[in-house]
Order: sequence, then structure tokens, then C-alpha cells
Amino acid sequence: MEERTGAQLIAEALRAQNVEYMFGIVGVPVIEVAMAAQTAGIKYVGMRNEQAVEACRLYSKFSARPSSLAAIPSVIEKAVRSSMYGRPGACYVDIPGDMVNAKIEEVKVRTVSCCPPPPVGLAQYNAIAGAISVLKQAERPLIIIGKGAAYSRAEAEILQLVESCELPFLPTPMGKGVVPDDHPNCVAAARSRALLQADVVVLLGARLNWILHFGFPPRFSPQVKIIQVDLCAEELGNNMRPAAALLGDIRAVVSQLLEELQKKPWKYPANTEWWKTLKDKMASNAKMSKAMALQPALPMNYYTAFHHISQLLPKDCIIVSEGANTMDIGRTMLLNSLPRHRLDAGTFGTMGVGLGFAIAAALLEKTQGSGQRVVCVEGDSAFGFSGMEVETMCRYKLPVVIIVINNNGIYSGVDTDTWREMEKMGDLTNIAPPVTLLPDARYDEVMRAFGGKGYLVQTPEELRSALQESLADWDRPSLLNVLIDPASDRKQQEFPWLTRSNL
Amino acid sequence: MEERTGAQLIAEALRAQNVEYMFGIVGVPVIEVAMAAQTAGIKYVGMRNEQAVEACRLYSKFSARPSSLAAIPSVIEKAVRSSMYGRPGACYVDIPGDMVNAKIEEVKVRTVSCCPPPPVGLAQYNAIAGAISVLKQAERPLIIIGKGAAYSRAEAEILQLVESCELPFLPTPMGKGVVPDDHPNCVAAARSRALLQADVVVLLGARLNWILHFGFPPRFSPQVKIIQVDLCAEELGNNMRPAAALLGDIRAVVSQLLEELQKKPWKYPANTEWWKTLKDKMASNAKMSKAMALQPALPMNYYTAFHHISQLLPKDCIIVSEGANTMDIGRTMLLNSLPRHRLDAGTFGTMGVGLGFAIAAALLEKTQGSGQRVVCVEGDSAFGFSGMEVETMCRYKLPVVIIVINNNGIYSGVDTDTWREMEKMGDLTNIAPPVTLLPDARYDEVMRAFGGKGYLVQTPEELRSALQESLADWDRPSLLNVLIDPASDRKQQEFPWLTRSNL
Amino acid sequence: MEERTGAQLIAEALRAQNVEYMFGIVGVPVIEVAMAAQTAGIKYVGMRNEQAVEACRLYSKFSARPSSLAAIPSVIEKAVRSSMYGRPGACYVDIPGDMVNAKIEEVKVRTVSCCPPPPVGLAQYNAIAGAISVLKQAERPLIIIGKGAAYSRAEAEILQLVESCELPFLPTPMGKGVVPDDHPNCVAAARSRALLQADVVVLLGARLNWILHFGFPPRFSPQVKIIQVDLCAEELGNNMRPAAALLGDIRAVVSQLLEELQKKPWKYPANTEWWKTLKDKMASNAKMSKAMALQPALPMNYYTAFHHISQLLPKDCIIVSEGANTMDIGRTMLLNSLPRHRLDAGTFGTMGVGLGFAIAAALLEKTQGSGQRVVCVEGDSAFGFSGMEVETMCRYKLPVVIIVINNNGIYSGVDTDTWREMEKMGDLTNIAPPVTLLPDARYDEVMRAFGGKGYLVQTPEELRSALQESLADWDRPSLLNVLIDPASDRKQQEFPWLTRSNL
Amino acid sequence: MEERTGAQLIAEALRAQNVEYMFGIVGVPVIEVAMAAQTAGIKYVGMRNEQAVEACRLYSKFSARPSSLAAIPSVIEKAVRSSMYGRPGACYVDIPGDMVNAKIEEVKVRTVSCCPPPPVGLAQYNAIAGAISVLKQAERPLIIIGKGAAYSRAEAEILQLVESCELPFLPTPMGKGVVPDDHPNCVAAARSRALLQADVVVLLGARLNWILHFGFPPRFSPQVKIIQVDLCAEELGNNMRPAAALLGDIRAVVSQLLEELQKKPWKYPANTEWWKTLKDKMASNAKMSKAMALQPALPMNYYTAFHHISQLLPKDCIIVSEGANTMDIGRTMLLNSLPRHRLDAGTFGTMGVGLGFAIAAALLEKTQGSGQRVVCVEGDSAFGFSGMEVETMCRYKLPVVIIVINNNGIYSGVDTDTWREMEKMGDLTNIAPPVTLLPDARYDEVMRAFGGKGYLVQTPEELRSALQESLADWDRPSLLNVLIDPASDRKQQEFPWLTRSNL
Repeated sequence: MEERTGAQLIAEALRAQNVEYMFGIVGVPVIEVAMAAQTAGIKYVGMRNEQAVEACRLYSKFSARPSSLAAIPSVIEKAVRSSMYGRPGACYVDIPGDMVNAKIEEVKVRTVSCCPPPPVGLAQYNAIAGAISVLKQAERPLIIIGKGAAYSRAEAEILQLVESCELPFLPTPMGKGVVPDDHPNCVAAARSRALLQADVVVLLGARLNWILHFGFPPRFSPQVKIIQVDLCAEELGNNMRPAAALLGDIRAVVSQLLEELQKKPWKYPANTEWWKTLKDKMASNAKMSKAMALQPALPMNYYTAFHHISQLLPKDCIIVSEGANTMDIGRTMLLNSLPRHRLDAGTFGTMGVGLGFAIAAALLEKTQGSGQRVVCVEGDSAFGFSGMEVETMCRYKLPVVIIVINNNGIYSGVDTDTWREMEKMGDLTNIAPPVTLLPDARYDEVMRAFGGKGYLVQTPEELRSALQESLADWDRPSLLNVLIDPASDRKQQEFPWLTRSNL
Repeated sequence: MEERTGAQLIAEALRAQNVEYMFGIVGVPVIEVAMAAQTAGIKYVGMRNEQAVEACRLYSKFSARPSSLAAIPSVIEKAVRSSMYGRPGACYVDIPGDMVNAKIEEVKVRTVSCCPPPPVGLAQYNAIAGAISVLKQAERPLIIIGKGAAYSRAEAEILQLVESCELPFLPTPMGKGVVPDDHPNCVAAARSRALLQADVVVLLGARLNWILHFGFPPRFSPQVKIIQVDLCAEELGNNMRPAAALLGDIRAVVSQLLEELQKKPWKYPANTEWWKTLKDKMASNAKMSKAMALQPALPMNYYTAFHHISQLLPKDCIIVSEGANTMDIGRTMLLNSLPRHRLDAGTFGTMGVGLGFAIAAALLEKTQGSGQRVVCVEGDSAFGFSGMEVETMCRYKLPVVIIVINNNGIYSGVDTDTWREMEKMGDLTNIAPPVTLLPDARYDEVMRAFGGKGYLVQTPEELRSALQESLADWDRPSLLNVLIDPASDRKQQEFPWLTRSNL
Repeated sequence: MEERTGAQLIAEALRAQNVEYMFGIVGVPVIEVAMAAQTAGIKYVGMRNEQAVEACRLYSKFSARPSSLAAIPSVIEKAVRSSMYGRPGACYVDIPGDMVNAKIEEVKVRTVSCCPPPPVGLAQYNAIAGAISVLKQAERPLIIIGKGAAYSRAEAEILQLVESCELPFLPTPMGKGVVPDDHPNCVAAARSRALLQADVVVLLGARLNWILHFGFPPRFSPQVKIIQVDLCAEELGNNMRPAAALLGDIRAVVSQLLEELQKKPWKYPANTEWWKTLKDKMASNAKMSKAMALQPALPMNYYTAFHHISQLLPKDCIIVSEGANTMDIGRTMLLNSLPRHRLDAGTFGTMGVGLGFAIAAALLEKTQGSGQRVVCVEGDSAFGFSGMEVETMCRYKLPVVIIVINNNGIYSGVDTDTWREMEKMGDLTNIAPPVTLLPDARYDEVMRAFGGKGYLVQTPEELRSALQESLADWDRPSLLNVLIDPASDRKQQEFPWLTRSNL
Repeated sequence: MEERTGAQLIAEALRAQNVEYMFGIVGVPVIEVAMAAQTAGIKYVGMRNEQAVEACRLYSKFSARPSSLAAIPSVIEKAVRSSMYGRPGACYVDIPGDMVNAKIEEVKVRTVSCCPPPPVGLAQYNAIAGAISVLKQAERPLIIIGKGAAYSRAEAEILQLVESCELPFLPTPMGKGVVPDDHPNCVAAARSRALLQADVVVLLGARLNWILHFGFPPRFSPQVKIIQVDLCAEELGNNMRPAAALLGDIRAVVSQLLEELQKKPWKYPANTEWWKTLKDKMASNAKMSKAMALQPALPMNYYTAFHHISQLLPKDCIIVSEGANTMDIGRTMLLNSLPRHRLDAGTFGTMGVGLGFAIAAALLEKTQGSGQRVVCVEGDSAFGFSGMEVETMCRYKLPVVIIVINNNGIYSGVDTDTWREMEKMGDLTNIAPPVTLLPDARYDEVMRAFGGKGYLVQTPEELRSALQESLADWDRPSLLNVLIDPASDRKQQEFPWLTRSNL
């Protein structure tokens, strides 16, 4: 009579669903599951911190507790399948501790094979025709490429749409790289202007949430018409009533649009006032941005730092990012050429996820042998949420390059001299602005403490040299502690186009 | 400075979303909302009981609390839209009591117009082709028509599919009438056999839940292939791995199937062993069922009662049903000719919803002047959950015909003589089986207490006469208290094909 | 190897905790538990409706799901104990359906014996002294007797406190009868005045919730000092900062107060301005109330109906009540002489609980042979929530006397003539005020439908005769459908002291 | 017209409740609250990570969301009061972001003054007498001093009880120091024996949870009698039925016991078999423990490390601890002389709280000028959960001494050589035991990275010198990275009395 423990059932059910990695923190009874996972051929990655496990359940698409050991495989299949089908999202399976070590006869377990790839839906023909009709009447069209476009692997189709119709486009943070950021039709550098004046917006898997100001004035024109493409019916019409609503997989629907357009080809003219407006704005912004980037003053400002970083990063690297200004400005300055190569804290602004994302990306890169670098660009405050995960990187020899953009604070900090003055004034808990962190924090030494490489970076030259050295080292992680002007945030606010709203 | 109260905003936002009826129980502060609703042109229906209001939130697709008065219209639009887009479901808007009477300047409110009909999605071409290939190889095909088919108004398309391919079909309880129950291809009367032996099942908007035994053996063949059509991606592959998964609106996808089939027409042969098996089984079941129905013994059994009812009901009537045996057997014996004309307690077996469903249906009928009767077939226990709603029917003069199939209990009861014996034995709380209710309960007099018509029915003749009289009266509700054999449940269990599993 | 099913474990664990009654609605798998309960010696009462089962969990003091069959007895003990220890409250044990029929070897079960009565806590000596010092300085003292005083069985002690110190007192709805309502020191008939002008209030197990206006002006004096006695620490200081906070069992703490007072006896003088104010107010209110009660007009008003009812009810009867005006006015007009003899919908105003309370009280009375009548005074709307439970009363021959105070509506209704006029005006869902119910609803016939006695009551004489007859019949339940003036609510509002705030 | 923002109201309401410190992570809109808090005189401490904010709500005693700005002060008063009254616990106030910046006229705000200290309850006299009667009959008595005793400040009374009756006692982790650990009657070094053989246990504010094995055999005698003293009624009888249940404040109830005992003084004899058993066991355990501590092998084992630490720590220091073995063994080896001077991860074993506890303790020490050191003893895995908080310590110059007991893993790790071998074997995610962390991790350098002092400690001599140096420095935090034998956990398991169960 063969028996299986709950831990074995969990591990084998996950493996049957093609789960390759398990991330966790051992403790009783996770240890048994972790060991069973390794036995089942799943790679186990021991992490240093876990966030809000109980809270997960509240935000999960699907959550369940198996009612018996025999039910474990089917519950896990449901969870894995639900996480990928429809709009992707986390799922939660709650397995009571005493179930992990309980046993069941093997013959009583009904195994479940791996679920197939998600089903694909198309839009209705007349909705396609209606959308094209709206698009053709546009005087100031704009495509917005969202995360959904990246998930559905719609890159070839969207590139063809952009190029065949010669339309300007704008990526959302996680939509970057679906069409390369350096494509001539990318108008990210005129983002505010593009959103404000567009009369027809094609939303490809992008939600009208706070990142897009809900589609509301004064950031959007009150007369804007929306062509919304989404795989989630409930999302259609959310916050804004679309002129055309196309329900379906982004890639499949864009193919439908292309097919329809091929019947009666159409191009948006290149010589319109709209293109001129956008190009002028991009040129002037680029000029200002370059002026900022080339300011010789030390400490550097955000633009200078990102300018040099962007010049050295390989085109195919995976960029992970979190922070406030660091993430915002990095979205503009660090270009992506490939889809699904940017991971950022994104929609919810949840801090502390960056290093975990980077570890996962680096493990995948290692398994696939893709030769792509994982670069993790962090604000100094954001790094603090899970900074101890550098030990995990060192432990597994993951060659992640972490760049901490360090302004001694959250949004903005103070310089060492000011800090010393404040120290003399008395108890810092009364005096120090809540946004400040310790000046001269040596995050680079934290990395060194575990055997990785650490660099203190104060000048453009040091930045270039440290980054080149880091990118050349595939044996261990590196961390560049890039000291920038603590007042950089306040200074840039003199330039209205450089604000947070320019995401 | 014009002002609006919260109550007005709620009422007007609902009206803007084309909400026509509001059902409620007044009390502070519902009264203000109810009055505002009437002012806004919404019909208000005062009910007698409310169930589990707090619990709603747990099972809602969408739940939200407006953060301010100004947010009420958009939250209500989201709730109404979410209730209809994607898989339909209840939504919950929680408005704190003090918001109902608070005021806001009218100019600060951003009204939201009515949301358009739900977007429609199609399946991929190759998935369509794959499904047809599976279907054509079927030796023992079966179409199962579910609630989703009714919601999507797919009746014309499904009828065409059934007839052009000459396929046997089976409706789920809420799928009844999408194709008329008396269609020659309907194999409901051989349900168990059809499920057990089918080698290819086409699921049209039906879920493999407990009503369909999860698609598992021994009720289904272990080798069965499923062609699953559903608008909800997460439902595809739930419990059973489909051979073909078609994501999209049922009506639209069946159209796609028809289009593809027209390219290369195909018919399932009429002279197969499968058709012979099904028809033989249907004939023998019909014979047994008829034998049961024609038993002259009194009190009547379920089959006798339903036999006579089914002969008299107009073809276009709306049948509402709840109960255990009453609902199960009624599903087989009471035929539907039109889609969306059967409402039953359904998937969750929640008791107490039947009279509410009937009230809503009768109000709609009255508004539309459709001339269709609403007939509510209730078990005696089920009737007890919300029996006081007969007052609501009388108050609004809704000509609902309620038929209580009264067996003095839940599943089964005892007759008056047995009950009197038990009374003599001592305290009934110790003695009476938990399933028993009071014999000779006069539910008909409950209806009379409020001015409706009540009939005590003990013979087929009384049943026919009372039902004819009730159906002829459009001025008030009627209730037929049909006394059947309390042991009817136990007796029918001698006939294995008549059990609950024959849903 | 003896085995026990989950159902048996549940039943036996409940029995071990001295649970005597189980109330439920059978269905799978409740039926197995109900049958096991009867076998274990628990009386099972089959009900007709259940409210918000899932919602229970949200409001429970304790909720748990046993992790295995063996854990059932200890989880049930925890639930039963938690429901009685500290502040009493509902507890929730969630047992998955498949556990009910699962089996376990008897030797593996650890039975748990019945938990002892709740532990009793006392207040600190100096807090007692402090409280007495505050009390002695009072110019206008008032004792408020709450539900907690009834729960702790503090009647003898509180009577002694009231009488030895000669203090005026006021009961909350569930505190009525701890000291008899007709005690000369009871100032319920001057409730608003007493609350408004008291300078020291002794709260004995009463919460400063909405029923007591949170202790806030303008209903209380802004200078009022509170002496708060409660067994729940978190309740002390809730909404109002007490001048003295006594933590402990009400009965025990009142004993401590008495002990301390005996050391240095003190009486509040009988000839104060405060007593004069209260007595004058009581007299003038009594006069007005009597004037209302003796109005000869028909239909009767609330006061007339309650006047006659109160004259006939036995002093030791148990009064259950729910409704809006019916409950409010009944609290004033129907006197209690014994503690724990009033059950009302109370703090949360939850409708639909009255008949269930009455059934439970009548069963207990039957078991104990106390000879006390259960009288259930219901508003007509409140009765509708669970009116079908009259079948339960008839089934178990419970001689409950239900008095429906019927004003054709909620708060207030309309008379038959007005209703007929409205019917002619068109669709009642547009026209009828949301508060109205059907005029001439014969709730008395609902009772007759199940074999109980029903009386239509339109005059004081009919009321007296029907009530006397009902009280004389111990073999079955009765229902008096007392038709009162539908405008009674609006009329009484001309008398400001008769409003809802006079709870 | 003076106005207040939501942020100001929050800050001022907290200040009014005597809240002195606020800990947080700024971000929109916390920044406004933090600044308002500083303005209101609350010290603001910016942290680096937050755990499970949403989860808090699930475990809170009280949670609420103010329905308007005006309600903020009273909701905050309720939360603060509820956190201290009855059993202490976290409370949760959920304030929507848009409320923080909203404004209200000052006159509309009803401020609430600071709530008084928690009310104190006593036990009943006969319960006191009963308890003493049980105690006097004890042959093998044992006092267990829990966290509740520390909270109620019962140290003087319990010392008197221990000494006047000459009873053996045992502290729980958070009960340590209520009576000094080095008191001759402390039998912590014979913990398992004491629990197993005691026939009467006096529980003073200690729960029979997993730390005390629920009071169940085989860790307790099946015949043990429990005298349970607790301020929470629902806790009395939890898991074990007490022979005497005393409801009340621990300090007050112990005073009651003393008073009663003084009437008829009683001493437990010093020459009993029980004392002999305990003393013999303590001596033999001490001998073994000392043998372990003095083992000269390097790396050190847990006992050696703790032996030297305990010799150098000042008697009045505050010990914070978390980890698995580190916390368990530290509880035994590191003695407390003062109550409320040990903070450990405790009942729930939640990791990541230690550094936060230490920061709070150090701030309080700084404010009070107590001259007491805060020493934080952490496992290496535990340190990783919130290790970045060392920056917070450096920023505020908090002289916390952190001692990381580093065994390269969770429960147990591997040494550098073994690790190097595993590295050669392939992908560590497949190979490394889930419990292992990186060998040679330099947690000391993490501290240095922010300006604190870091020490790598490999020998007893280095340990003593580093600790002495750290304790002498009041200007900054220090971290001792104490490398111990990675196999130390496995080795100690040969000594059965040294296991986790010896908490």
C-alpha cells in the first residue's frame, strides 16, 4: 500500500502543472513541502522575507482550501489555471499545517495533468469595423500599449499596426518594449501632450487607472474617443465609456484589426499638425532632458545618472524597477527594445517587490541560458524594503546588477552637512523631515557583506566604469550605490514636464 | 445653489442605468431611497423579508463603498455594468446610512450615462475547426444546453445547430426552452443514459458542477471528450480537461460553428445505435412515467400531479420552481417551449427565492403586457421560507399561480394518522423525524388571508379544475395546495431512473 | 473497533455541554446531525426559515472550523463556553459537509465535559468607594438598568440598592423587570426628562449606544457624571468618559456597593426638586397616555390597544416584541414584573427574530412546566419576516399568543378607502408609499390555516375577549390581528413626548 | 473660520491619547500625517519596511473606519482605549486617503481627552478561598508566571507570594523577570520535569497555548490541577478545565490571595521530595549546560556563545529576541532581573519583529534616560527579515547591541567547505537543503555600511571583547556576527533535555 504525504501531493501537483520554481521561507511545516518540491524536480529558492501572506487571500482571483488530501491535485490545478486564464492574477491555496504531514494511499489520489495554454477570444466583426471607422476619422490618434499587450505576446501584430498605419504610440510602464521604445513613432517623450490632445485613443490591454489619470480631464480631452481592447469584459467601459469596445485577446484582436485594414488600407498622414505638435514637443523635451543630463554639477541629478546608465545597458537586458522618482524618471530614460523585459512595482506602487522580481528573472535567464542581463534600478527607500535579499542573490550566484539611485530619502532627502546640523539641534525624531534617510548610507557595502561586488558611485565616470565592470561579471551580483543630489526632486519640479504625472 | 441628497443621487444613478424596479424593505434609511426612486421613475416593490444582506457582499462579483457623495453615480454604474458584463452576477454597493441624507451641490456631481449592452467575444478560428473535427468523429454525441446559452439569447443558432446536424440535446434546468423541451431531438427523458454513454459532449454555457456530476465517472464515461463553449476563460477546463475549448459568447460561437459547418455540411446519422439506445430508453422511461402518472391511488404521487399540471399549462408560461423532489421531478415533467421561461433555485439550491422570482417575473409581464402566465411550483418546505410574500402578490394584484406540492415534509413526510400517533407518544421534538412538517397545513388559506384565491386539491379532478380556474383569473394570485402522498418520495425510489440524479 | 460519525460527535459534544435544544432546517447534511441530536437526547425543532447563516460568522465572538473529527468536541466546548463567558454572544462552528459523514475510531476522540458557569469578577475597593462618593454628591441621580443586569441575575441586589437608597431608576428594553416596572421608583414614564436632567447616572450593565443616544447632548446633560458598571473592560468609557468605572459582574459589583453603603448608610431624600420634577412629568405623561388610551374612536390607536392588553396579561408572562412603533410603545405600556421576561429585537433592530424567540421561550416553559405564558407582540411588517413560523408553533402545539398590531404598514399605512383610490390611479409600484402594506390583511387566518386560533380584532371589546380566550387555551397558539388606525403613527407625533426617542 | 485637515485631526487625536511615538514609512498620504504628528509633538520614526498592513485588520481587537472627519477623535480614542483595556491587543483604524487632506471647521470637531488607565477587576472571595484550598493540598505545586503578570505590573505581589509560600516558579518567555530569573525558587532549568510532575499549577496570566503544550499529557500530568488567574473570562478553562478560576487583574488577584493567606499563613515545605527532584534536575541540567558551554571546540556552539553573553550583559538590560534555536536557548541562558525587560517574537513566532521592538525600546530608554541597554539577540535567518532597519538605528543614533547568532541557516546550516562542495555539484536550487543560508555572511558589515560598529566574532575571546566594547558605546548601534557551528542544532539534539520543547 503506497502512501503519499500531503507535502508530496502538493509538490507533485505543482510539478504536474509545470511549476518550475518555488520561492519560500522555511519554517515548520514549509520545510517538508520545500524538500518534497526539490524531490519532485522543482527548484527551491529560499528567500529572506515574506510580505502579507494572509493579505494575499484578500486580493486573490481564486482562493481555496482543499477539503481532503485527495483534493489537493485538483485544487492546485484550479489555482494554477485560474492564475493564467482570463486576466492573470495571484491565486491562494490554504493548506492547514496538519495536512502537510498526513498520509493517504496513493490509489485514492486522482492526479491532474498540466492545464493547456489559455484559450484565446476574438472580437466581433462589426465591433472591429466600428473601431476602424472611429480610427479613420481621428485627427489626433494615439495608441496606448499596456501590460495586456505584453502578456498576450502581441508584439509583431502591434508593430505592424503602428507601422502600416503610421500611428503614434505610447507604452505604459509594463507595456514598454512591446514596440521598441526607440521606434520613431514612440511619443513617450511627449506623453502629457499626447494624452491631453489626442482625439482618438486606442487602448491595447491598458487600463484607465490612476497611471492614466482614469482617462479624465484635465489630463485627457473631454471629447476623446476611446477604442478599448481588453480580454476582460468587466474592464470595458471602466471609468470611460468607449466609442468602440473590443473584447478579446489583444494579439488576436489586433490581428483582426490588421486583417480588416488590409482589405482597405489606410495610413495616418505623416504631415499632420498632430505629428508636428508631438515632434516639436519631443524635441523640446529631449533638449531639456539632455540639458539636465549634461549638467556638470556634482552630486549628479536623476537625469545625468539615467543618461549614462541608458547608454551602457545592453538592448536586451531585463530592467526591474521600483521607487518613486527613480521608477518614474527611469521609465522615460531607460529604453526597452523587447517586450516583457521591464518589471516594475507598477499599478499598486507596492514597494519591496523589486529584488524578488530580479531574482526570479535571473533564475529564468540562468535556466534558459539567454545571455540577457537583469538590471534592477531601485530608489534608496525602495531598496530598504527587502535589501537583505542581496544575500539570496549571492547565495545562488545570480549576476543581477542593482543600481541604487540614492538621494538620501523618499522623494527627496538632505545632504550630509544639513543632516549634521539637524543632529546638533536635538532629537531627530522631532526634527528630521519624515522623508529623510541617513546620508552616506553605503548600500554597496551591504552587497559586499555577502560576497557580491559593491561600488560607491559619485561621478559620471565612476558610474560608467562601475556599470561596465558589473555588466562584464557573470559570476556574482553587483550593487552600484549612485549618490545623487538629495535636492534633485525639488529642483526638477521647476521643469513642469518632468513631474510624476509624466509616467 | 441646487443640492442633491445621497438618496436622490442613488435613485437617479440607478435610473440612468435603466434600472426599472427596486425591491426592498423600508426602514430607516431605506425609506428615503425608496421615495427618491419612485420620484425618479423607478417602480418600488415593498417585500416582506430579506435574506442575508451582509452575506451578499461575500458572493458579489464587485463590491464597493463610495468614498464621497460625488462618487455615487460612477460606483453605481460600475456595479450595474459589472453585473451584466462577463459572467452575470450580483454586485454590492455599500452606502453608509449618513450618506443617504447628506447633501452635495448638484454641479459637483458627475453623472454617468447608461452602460451599453455587454461586449461580445468570439472564439479563435482554429479552435472552431478543432471542435468541429472532434464533433465529426463522435459516435455518441450529445449537446448540453446551459444557462449561459439562455443568457446570450442563442436560441435560433442552437436550434439550427441541433437541426442541421441532427444531434441529440439535453438542457440543464435553466437551459430548458432554449430549444423547446418537446423537440424530437431532446433526450431529457433519457438523461442518465445520455450522460453515461456519450463519447463527445458539447457544453454550451453549462458548467460541470454538481448538477452535472462534475463530468466525472460513474455518471460520465471516462473516455468522454468535451467541447466546451463558455464566455468565462476561468471556467474552461474546470473539473474536466476539454478536447476543445471555445472562449466567447455562446450565441456568437455557435454562429461561428454553424458558419464553419456550412462550408462542409455534416449530419449525425439518424440510424445509429446511439439514437436507438436513446429512443428506446426514452420510450421505456415515458412508459414508466406514464404508469406512475396514471396510478389511480389517492393521495396522488408526484407524477400524477405533474402530469395533469403539464397538460394544462400554456406553452408560453414562465415556470418558477424550488424544492427538492418538486424541483427535480418538475424539471422533467413540466416542459418549456421558450427560452428564459424557467427560473429555478438552481445551482446553489438556495431555498426561499421562488416567490421573489415569481413577483419579479409577474411585474415584468405586467409592464410588457406579454399575456404570459407566471406559474410558481413549490415544495411545501420551500414555500415556508418566504410564504408571506403572497401578501406582496395580493397587494400589487400580481396574478401568479402558485402550486404547492405538499407532501407534509422535506423529502418526505408522514400522513395525518401517523402524526396523531406520534403526538400521543410524547414530546414531538424528541420523536418527530426532522423531515416532517404539520400534516393538513392549509397553505391555500394563507393565500386567502390576503385576498387571493386558495384551493385545497386532493384529486386529479380538483387539480384540473382549480388550475383552469386560476389560469383564467388575471386579477389576483391563486394558490393550489396539492396534497400528495407523503410517502411518494420513498415509493419512487423503487424506480431507479427517477432519482434526484435525473436532473 | 467502535466508530463515531462526525454527526454523532457534534451531537454528543453539544449534549455534553448541556445543550438541550437544536433549531434548524433540514437538508443534506443537516439531516444527519438532526437525527444524531435526537438520539443523543437533544430536542430538535424544525424551523421554516433561516437568516444569514454566513453572516453569523462576521458577528461571532468566536468562530472556528475543526481541523479533524477528533477536534470536534473541544471546538464545540470552546464555542459554547465562549458564548457564555465574558459578554455573552453568538459563536460559530463551521463543519464541512464531508466531515459530517466521515468516521473515526471512538478511542481517538477526546471527550470534553460540560464547562462550568461563567467566572465572576469584582471591582476594586477604591473604585467602589469612588463611585459611592460620586453618587452621594448627586443632586439628580438616576439608575439605568440594562441587559447585563438581567444576564447576571442581579435582581435582588439592584432592588435592594433602589430601595435602600431610594433612587429613581429606568430600565432599558431588555433590562425591564429586573426591578418590576410598576415599582414606585421606576421613572420610565418620564424617560426623556430623566435622561436629560440627571446629574449622576449609574449604568448597570447598560451600554451607551443609540438606544441611550450615546450619552450625548441634547438628550443628556453635558455635565452628567456616569458611574459605569460593566463586565467588559473595553466597554468602560465607550462614548462617554465615566466618573467612576467599575469592572465586574453586575450582581457582584452591586453587592460590593451595598456592602460599602451599609458601612455608612445613605438615602437620596424623597422630597427633592428632582423627585418632584420626575413625578410631575410622570403624572402628566400618564394623563396624556390615558387620554390617548381612552379615545373612543375606531379604529383604535396604539395606546388604546396596549392599554387593554396590559390590563389582561398575567404578571409573570414572557413578552416578546418586535416592530417599530409596536416595539417602542409596547416597551412603555406593557409592564414586566420579572427579570428576563422580555425579549425584544433590541439593539440592532433586526426584524424577523420575534417568532423564533417566542418558540424557544415556549419550549422552555413547556419543559419546565412554569405555567408562564409567552406573548408575542408584533408589528404587521415585522410579523411578515417569519410569519410562516406559526406552522412550527402549531406543529409542536406551542401555546404562544401572538398579537399583531396591524396598521397596514411600516411606521404608518393607509386605510382601505384610500388604498382603493390609489388602486384606481394606476400602477401601485409607482404610487403606493413605500411604507404601505395591504389593508385588511388577515394575519389571523394565516394562523388558522395551520390549526391555531385566529381572531380579527377591531374594538376594545373584541380585543379583551379574544385575549382572554387565547390566554385560557394551553393547547395551541393563537393570533390576534388587531386592526388599529393606519394614521396612528402620524397622529401621535403631535404629542412630542411619544416619539421613538422615548425608548 | 478655523479649519483642520484630516491629518491634523489624526495627529492631535493621537497626541490627546498620550501617544508619544509614531512609526511609519512615508508615501502619499502618510507624509502629511507624519508631518502633522511632528507638529503635534509626536516623535516620528521613519522605518524601512512594513509588514502585512492589511492583515492587521484581521487580527485586531477593534477595527473601524471613521464615517466623517468629525468622527476621527472618537474613533482614535476607542482604538487606543481598546488596545489597553481588557487583554491588550492591536487595533486598526482605516482612514481613506482622501480624508487625510479634506478639511473641516474646527468648531465641528468634538475632541476627546486621554482615556484613563485600564479598570482593574478582582476575583470573587469564595473563588480565592477555593484556590487557596487547592494550593494547600498540593504535593508538587508550581507557579507559572506569564505575560499577563508583566502587563499588570504584579512583580511585587508575585515575589511576595513566591517567597512567603516558598513555592517553585517558572516564567513564560514574556513573563521572565517578573520575579528575577536568578531567584532561588526559579525552576526554569528544570522546566520539562516541573511541568510534567506538578500536581497543582498556578497560572498567573499565562495561556495554555502551544508554548505550554496546551496543558496536555504527555507534557503535563493527566491529574494536574490548574489554578488559573486571568483578566479575560473567555480564557478561563481554555484547553484545560481549571480546579479554580480567578477572573481579574493579575496584580489585584494575587493581592487578594496574599491577603487571604495572611489570615492563615501557609508555607510549602522546603524539604519535600518535589523540591529535591527539581533541584537535582536543575543541578544536572546546569552541569550539562555548563559542559556544553565550556566545550573548547570552534566554531562555538549555542551554549558557549550564550554563556559568555550572559556573563557580560548588565542585569537591567532589555533583551529582545527572535529566531528558532536562538530564541529558545536564549530564553534559558539569558537571565532577566526586571519585569518587562524581555521582548520576544513569542506566541505566534512571527519573524521580523525583533529590530522594530529594539528600536522602540531604545527610543523609550533615550527619552526616559534610564541608562538601560537594549540588546537584540537574533538568529541569522530572523535578522534577514528586517535587517535593513539597522539603517534606522544608525540614523537615530540608537545604541542597540545586536547579536546575530549565525549558524548559516534556519534550524541548521552547512559549513563553508560543504557549501563549496555543493556549489560544484550544480544548480544550488536543486541541491541546497532549504534550510541553508550563505556561509560567511557578514551581517557585521551590513551594520558598518551605515556607520554602526560591526564585529566578526569567531571565538569566546572575540565575543567577550566585542560585547564589552559595544556595551561601552552609547553613541551608535553595534552588531556582533557570532559564527557558531552550523551543526550545533543537530548536535544538541543528542541531549534530549535541550530541545525546543524546553521553552
